Amino acid sequence: MAIIECVPNVSEGRRPEVISGLADALRAVPGLRVLDVQSDAAHNRSVFTLAGDAAALAAGIPALFEGAIAAIDLRTHRGEHPRLGAVDVVPFIPIEGATMETCVQLARAVAADVAARFNLPIYLYEDAAAAPARKNLEDIRRGEFEGLAAKMAQPAWAPDFGPAAPHPTAGAAVIGARMPLIAYNINLATTRLDVAKKIASAVRMSSGGLRFVKAMGIPLDDRGIVQVSMNLTNYEKTPIFRVFELVKREAARYGVTVLESEIVGLVPAAALTAAAEYYLQLEGFSADQVLENTIRRLPAE
Amino acid sequence: MAIIECVPNVSEGRRPEVISGLADALRAVPGLRVLDVQSDAAHNRSVFTLAGDAAALAAGIPALFEGAIAAIDLRTHRGEHPRLGAVDVVPFIPIEGATMETCVQLARAVAADVAARFNLPIYLYEDAAAAPARKNLEDIRRGEFEGLAAKMAQPAWAPDFGPAAPHPTAGAAVIGARMPLIAYNINLATTRLDVAKKIASAVRMSSGGLRFVKAMGIPLDDRGIVQVSMNLTNYEKTPIFRVFELVKREAARYGVTVLESEIVGLVPAAALTAAAEYYLQLEGFSADQVLENTIRRLPAE
Repeated sequence: MAIIECVPNVSEGRRPEVISGLADALRAVPGLRVLDVQSDAAHNRSVFTLAGDAAALAAGIPALFEGAIAAIDLRTHRGEHPRLGAVDVVPFIPIEGATMETCVQLARAVAADVAARFNLPIYLYEDAAAAPARKNLEDIRRGEFEGLAAKMAQPAWAPDFGPAAPHPTAGAAVIGARMPLIAYNINLATTRLDVAKKIASAVRMSSGGLRFVKAMGIPLDDRGIVQVSMNLTNYEKTPIFRVFELVKREAARYGVTVLESEIVGLVPAAALTAAAEYYLQLEGFSADQVLENTIRRLPAE
Repeated sequence: MAIIECVPNVSEGRRPEVISGLADALRAVPGLRVLDVQSDAAHNRSVFTLAGDAAALAAGIPALFEGAIAAIDLRTHRGEHPRLGAVDVVPFIPIEGATMETCVQLARAVAADVAARFNLPIYLYEDAAAAPARKNLEDIRRGEFEGLAAKMAQPAWAPDFGPAAPHPTAGAAVIGARMPLIAYNINLATTRLDVAKKIASAVRMSSGGLRFVKAMGIPLDDRGIVQVSMNLTNYEKTPIFRVFELVKREAARYGVTVLESEIVGLVPAAALTAAAEYYLQLEGFSADQVLENTIRRLPAE
């Protein structure tokens, strides 16, 4: 069975009864698994981590919209995190037995469904974007809910689905498809923050580095060291091992060594297997050789 | 649910109807999965790869013995592979959610059951062995079926379960528990077989190398290179990455580089994850962070 991950961000992080009501509505959908719910009161935002096949997610996400639109009023919503809708962002992420194309189609189908049911404007983003100018979430969200009516009045910002004006209380939503994010940090055996910043600048795309790396240099004051803190946005095209090796090379230029690295949160198995293949110079390796994969593929008889 | 692998070796590799009959009997056991059946006519032997929990295997293995004892007569059996019984060897192997201790207990329970049902002598081997002299399969099997009656007449070779004389047609069986084997080869960019042999000798336990490595140097004539061909018998205590790095170091001493390595057949996911952790210097990593593991642990709701 295909596994697709979905990480909807909802503009409510302070009322536990609203958040648990939304989680319950999701758990009631057959075949849909709620892996995690993280709420942040300062951001006034909750992040749900869901997994299921396309059918389960196509049933679950409209239920989430229904509950969130009923409970959340953006006119009175305040929080540190930028947002333009009650359900703000919904990315679909291929994990196992599902392609990016499946996730793009799912994003479009859910966008059309939700726009029609709730009369809500929807923008498609990342791999589901209809045009390059709409790939980037920050560009779509710029101006936030408060600036949405003025933004939507421009022909360039007509939504991909739904009405050409904001929903009065729920704003708009951004739905799309993207690769899994890997939060990956490398700790350096030095107190020199300038070195961490220079390395971050060398490896991230925005200043000339690797295509799918976002990076910054930060101090870890309690440990007296510095860190290159990164998001890897496509581990297939910019794999973990290449990022690690490049950071190690750049650090050597300053006489600095890598102390350790860390993966924060979840990581697809294939991202780790790729590192094993690279360093062990494994030729002709296939995921079918992973014992657990073979066992799981066969139905019990 | 726990996954235990079991790889029974049966002394029949020439009569397809017998082999498929045994496979069908195994498939009929609830919860037991038949992952693979490999038969070799020259060896006159078949290797079944099974997976299931302890209960499924405790039900399935006696069914395999029943079919094999009815169909196979060791008095007329000929083949290149050493053997002492109709069902010759039955290793239980912990894969996921099962400890070695569980597999040892399972081996003992199945041995007692099979010995009583079929009046068959059983030896326990590897991690299930009752004494160090019985750990090694080759020691137990030395003399084969033809020498079994004389061997069993010695008090030192009294079986762990069952009668103190061979079964007239089915001989005896060796049942035990062991770690998964990884067949791992490293190809060297040289034609010098002496280098492959020296490296094999340096890394294998029998001549002073790593505890859980068996190795030999062989030529790959069609490619004009040589190979260090290995079996890793405990990937937790002697991990793949350490073997790879040691072979690379030894090769450097002869001015030879590693061309590539290869894993033949199946490998537990944890053996690859360990290599990623080592080379990426990953601190504080846990298998719970592998996305697929998290998804699978939760029941669909």
